[in-house]
Amino acid sequence: MTLQAQIDTLVTPTPGLGGLPLDRSMLGIALRMGTEGGKRFRPWLFAATYDQLSGRWADAPAVDRTVRERVAAAIELLHTAFVIHDDVIDNDDERRGHTSIPGWFRGSTTSDSAVYARAGAILTGDLALAAAVRGIATCGAPQEVTTALLDLLDSTLHDSAVGELSDVRLAIGGAAPTMDDAIAVAELKTAAYSFVLPMKAAAILAGAPEDVLEKVSDVGRSLGIAFQLRDDLLGTFGDPAIVGKDPDGDLREGKRTPLVVHAAASSHWWRVEPHLGNPDLTREEADEIRRALMEAGSFDHVETLMGRHVRIARWHAEALDLTAPIVDTLTSTWDIAGATVPPAPADEPLEAATVGVA
Amino acid sequence: MTLQAQIDTLVTPTPGLGGLPLDRSMLGIALRMGTEGGKRFRPWLFAATYDQLSGRWADAPAVDRTVRERVAAAIELLHTAFVIHDDVIDNDDERRGHTSIPGWFRGSTTSDSAVYARAGAILTGDLALAAAVRGIATCGAPQEVTTALLDLLDSTLHDSAVGELSDVRLAIGGAAPTMDDAIAVAELKTAAYSFVLPMKAAAILAGAPEDVLEKVSDVGRSLGIAFQLRDDLLGTFGDPAIVGKDPDGDLREGKRTPLVVHAAASSHWWRVEPHLGNPDLTREEADEIRRALMEAGSFDHVETLMGRHVRIARWHAEALDLTAPIVDTLTSTWDIAGATVPPAPADEPLEAATVGVA
Repeated sequence: MTLQAQIDTLVTPTPGLGGLPLDRSMLGIALRMGTEGGKRFRPWLFAATYDQLSGRWADAPAVDRTVRERVAAAIELLHTAFVIHDDVIDNDDERRGHTSIPGWFRGSTTSDSAVYARAGAILTGDLALAAAVRGIATCGAPQEVTTALLDLLDSTLHDSAVGELSDVRLAIGGAAPTMDDAIAVAELKTAAYSFVLPMKAAAILAGAPEDVLEKVSDVGRSLGIAFQLRDDLLGTFGDPAIVGKDPDGDLREGKRTPLVVHAAASSHWWRVEPHLGNPDLTREEADEIRRALMEAGSFDHVETLMGRHVRIARWHAEALDLTAPIVDTLTSTWDIAGATVPPAPADEPLEAATVGVA
Repeated sequence: MTLQAQIDTLVTPTPGLGGLPLDRSMLGIALRMGTEGGKRFRPWLFAATYDQLSGRWADAPAVDRTVRERVAAAIELLHTAFVIHDDVIDNDDERRGHTSIPGWFRGSTTSDSAVYARAGAILTGDLALAAAVRGIATCGAPQEVTTALLDLLDSTLHDSAVGELSDVRLAIGGAAPTMDDAIAVAELKTAAYSFVLPMKAAAILAGAPEDVLEKVSDVGRSLGIAFQLRDDLLGTFGDPAIVGKDPDGDLREGKRTPLVVHAAASSHWWRVEPHLGNPDLTREEADEIRRALMEAGSFDHVETLMGRHVRIARWHAEALDLTAPIVDTLTSTWDIAGATVPPAPADEPLEAATVGVA
């Protein structure tokens, strides 16, 4: 079975009471839209880590290919659920240039209904989330391995929810986050489920002992933080043609990323603060924020921070022989310079222009 | 262990990466608020059905008290998750006179933030939902029984999501639902998870054969439809002091309950339609709708329909000896007359009053 076939199996409903075919097919289509395509990066990380670690421990549990495919499918479905619920929380009708699941539900009514968009997307995310837990529960590994995976999934869910809630809370203002807070958000909302979960699940299936699980977790955590820092840089400075994302989105939402937290302690903060979180932010105002973030050294600081976390990941991975196959393979595509564009230069101040003409 | 202790165990996070204690405790408090108290009616229905059916089949699986408590806790947690996400969908800051989970998150910020309320409640519901699936997965029953329970949970989730989405879609207008549609919504959004799930899960644990599972499902379905019809009657005609619910809520949301669907085919529809779904509905307008629903015979029709579904439930239950202990015990408290109030009489028309004074 392919990964997609496993995902399809998990989101195909067990026959129940039946009825209401229109709404049933709407949810079915939304689940398919939400689970098809994508980079499949988390299943790759899971499979690559398993390939590296399997065979190292004599008392490893008996897990065949089907077990691993089902766990990989569950990991991808968790991502699907988070993406969909995230789009409901942020009220995003688009995601990377495509219609989001709430946007699709909204567009499928004649009344442009916010409540229907919310309902459709919350319910679709619920079905994906439940399918993810069920996928782990029925993966077919020995009982104690399945229990360990369910425990890992449980801690991942709680950590991710904490990270996501924190991200939203800091964005609405009222708190002045420290750099530690901002890094902790990256760790919990991204590293936990996108890196630690796939890598640690692979290590559990490979029969790794507790101390190795801890080290694998450390690699995933550092890699995940670096990945999120990169995402923050691209979220504000990314080339839309490459990144496929509105470069003003994070600023409009007022996200307190490490980029912004660094600037808050600089003498350029007065140029950033008044516009941050303004849903009607203009391109000119966003460019002014970007210039301030460059001149405050925030861009450079976060890029340095990202490099540091990649190095920490390499350092942890070294002892496990995971540096080249996992850390380097992954981070070799994380080029920042090629994927970002500098902010547009400021318009000449009116006075200077007038002087020039005169 | 008590039911609450089992619930607490399931919602207590497995230790993970840690960090961000404020947001972590917010989610912990919300989970506790969402899972404490309540009528515990679904766990009761599960336990009562199990008590009646257990011991009837020689090849029943070995399930001890702990297994049943864990399944009961999972069933209650599913209800918690649905209630919380329902309050997000409907944007309700109150539920039965108390602050809802989104309302609680909103109230805990100084900025009255809708996005924070939505985030907190969606994430809390996600954690409750995942805990429900995990509760079934780790209930400790023999493997094939656990798989059967997970399949039942899966079909229940899909049916419930379909029913909920349909309920919302019909409320936003644009479709003219038939009475069959309205009954199907009651069946899927309420009967599936509140009646069929607890009763069928109990029957599975009692080792009931397939034909009995079908009959148990029929009892649950009819009981659940009757329960929802009662809820619809109380939702519009209920005495707030008894029901603890704003009697204008369903009308404001424009819910297409069987009550409303019946009226739509009557000569009184013109009195109902203009006000239905108006979020600013006044008490006077709501009373006018209630009078129209009475005079159109819609109240009586739905009450009759409810009685009919109770009789169908009794009929199905008879063959299983579940009539007295389950159906009668449950429905004996479903008094309609004592829990409803007639609509306020219409004000005298201005002309008549003037004539009276003159």
